[in-house]
Amino acid sequence: MATATVFPSLLPLLFLARVCGLSVAFLVLFWALTFKSSFLNTSNSLPQQDLIYAVLHPVLMVIGFILLSGEAILVHRWLPGSRGLKKSVHLCLQGVALASGIFGIWTKFQVNDGIVANFYSLHSWMGLICVSLFGAQWLIGFLNFWHRGEIRTVRIKILPWHVFLGLYTYALAVATAETGLLEKLTFLQTQRNVSKHSTESMVVNSLGLGLALLSGFVILAAVSPKYQILQSKLLYSDSRCLAS
Amino acid sequence: MATATVFPSLLPLLFLARVCGLSVAFLVLFWALTFKSSFLNTSNSLPQQDLIYAVLHPVLMVIGFILLSGEAILVHRWLPGSRGLKKSVHLCLQGVALASGIFGIWTKFQVNDGIVANFYSLHSWMGLICVSLFGAQWLIGFLNFWHRGEIRTVRIKILPWHVFLGLYTYALAVATAETGLLEKLTFLQTQRNVSKHSTESMVVNSLGLGLALLSGFVILAAVSPKYQILQSKLLYSDSRCLAS
Repeated sequence: MATATVFPSLLPLLFLARVCGLSVAFLVLFWALTFKSSFLNTSNSLPQQDLIYAVLHPVLMVIGFILLSGEAILVHRWLPGSRGLKKSVHLCLQGVALASGIFGIWTKFQVNDGIVANFYSLHSWMGLICVSLFGAQWLIGFLNFWHRGEIRTVRIKILPWHVFLGLYTYALAVATAETGLLEKLTFLQTQRNVSKHSTESMVVNSLGLGLALLSGFVILAAVSPKYQILQSKLLYSDSRCLAS
Repeated sequence: MATATVFPSLLPLLFLARVCGLSVAFLVLFWALTFKSSFLNTSNSLPQQDLIYAVLHPVLMVIGFILLSGEAILVHRWLPGSRGLKKSVHLCLQGVALASGIFGIWTKFQVNDGIVANFYSLHSWMGLICVSLFGAQWLIGFLNFWHRGEIRTVRIKILPWHVFLGLYTYALAVATAETGLLEKLTFLQTQRNVSKHSTESMVVNSLGLGLALLSGFVILAAVSPKYQILQSKLLYSDSRCLAS
């Protein structure tokens, strides 16, 4: 049964994911660098330093955390070479993404009033859970698949959980970013009268849609090849029931 | 190879998804009925009618659209009986969910200033894309798997796309709801001085976390059984490479 055509081949998917990723990177940089005044905390006495921290937050979370971890997910699909090399690059990229995420959260503590005062919004709650899950995933991944501290049967049992939780954490990171974008924009619109149809609003909305689209391509590329391999077995048994 | 233990069996997953779903339903009703004044548009002349529309929006989108479509996804996993019965119940539940989603969006046009004026936020853009995708999925599902307008080979090719796009749309609906909750709360906090640590803020944040958790359980339950069946084949070929 010709099942290779069920999903698009990997190359166009990887290409689309990269085009989306580059657009998202451009949009977040354009937003952060062009609309700097939106990131200023007017009540603070150190606007210049605050501005750097405030601008760094979306840049680190979107480019450092989300885009880099998306690329780390895709490494198993595009990097030529041994499995060991793929695992090393995956681990390193996820490590840099995790560091960016932690640094990105840390920047918020510098602008506002300490750590506890920051954790009031759904965005902050989701972000904390997301980075904690990400850290746990990285540690378990390191201990099991790279450091190989566990026996083979345990590693085999952990692998599908690692894949599912990894993709879930990635999707949660994107959802958290969407809430962050909307929180910032709603604040600007109600507090500083930024127009609902201004260029800034359009840039932030496009950034949000770009992230949603990117996550779809990354997750599809991540699950697609295995799905293809197994497709013939699956479809043969399912087609008579589901599609009949 | 004993692979049935890799993922938890279906029953606990279904139970957890339902507990999460009930908690989410309780929280959205508690929010809508207890904090009614938050939903009032102070500048409007018809507060009573506006209040009904404003309260209906989150209730319809969360209970009618998200919870019902989650249950429709799970129907293939728990409903006893023939495949035809499962497909019919799936189609009907998704139809009711779609109607709730459209009605839920319609309520927003009654409170604010017309249709176009409402589509300024990332929440509204995501919501429109989500309901459009959902509608297209329902129509294609009806034409292919229920009405059987296409030949069998076409249906076989469409099935994995239908599953992937269905789960993606569901996740997008949850992400859209998260942005809606944050938009509402940020507006209340900046415009009406609702405290960041008030009961209302905690209820809405818990509702957001409940939705994120629910989506994880529903998607895991949806992909888990097939994954288990194929696990032995997958693990046998992958274990020597990935886990070695």
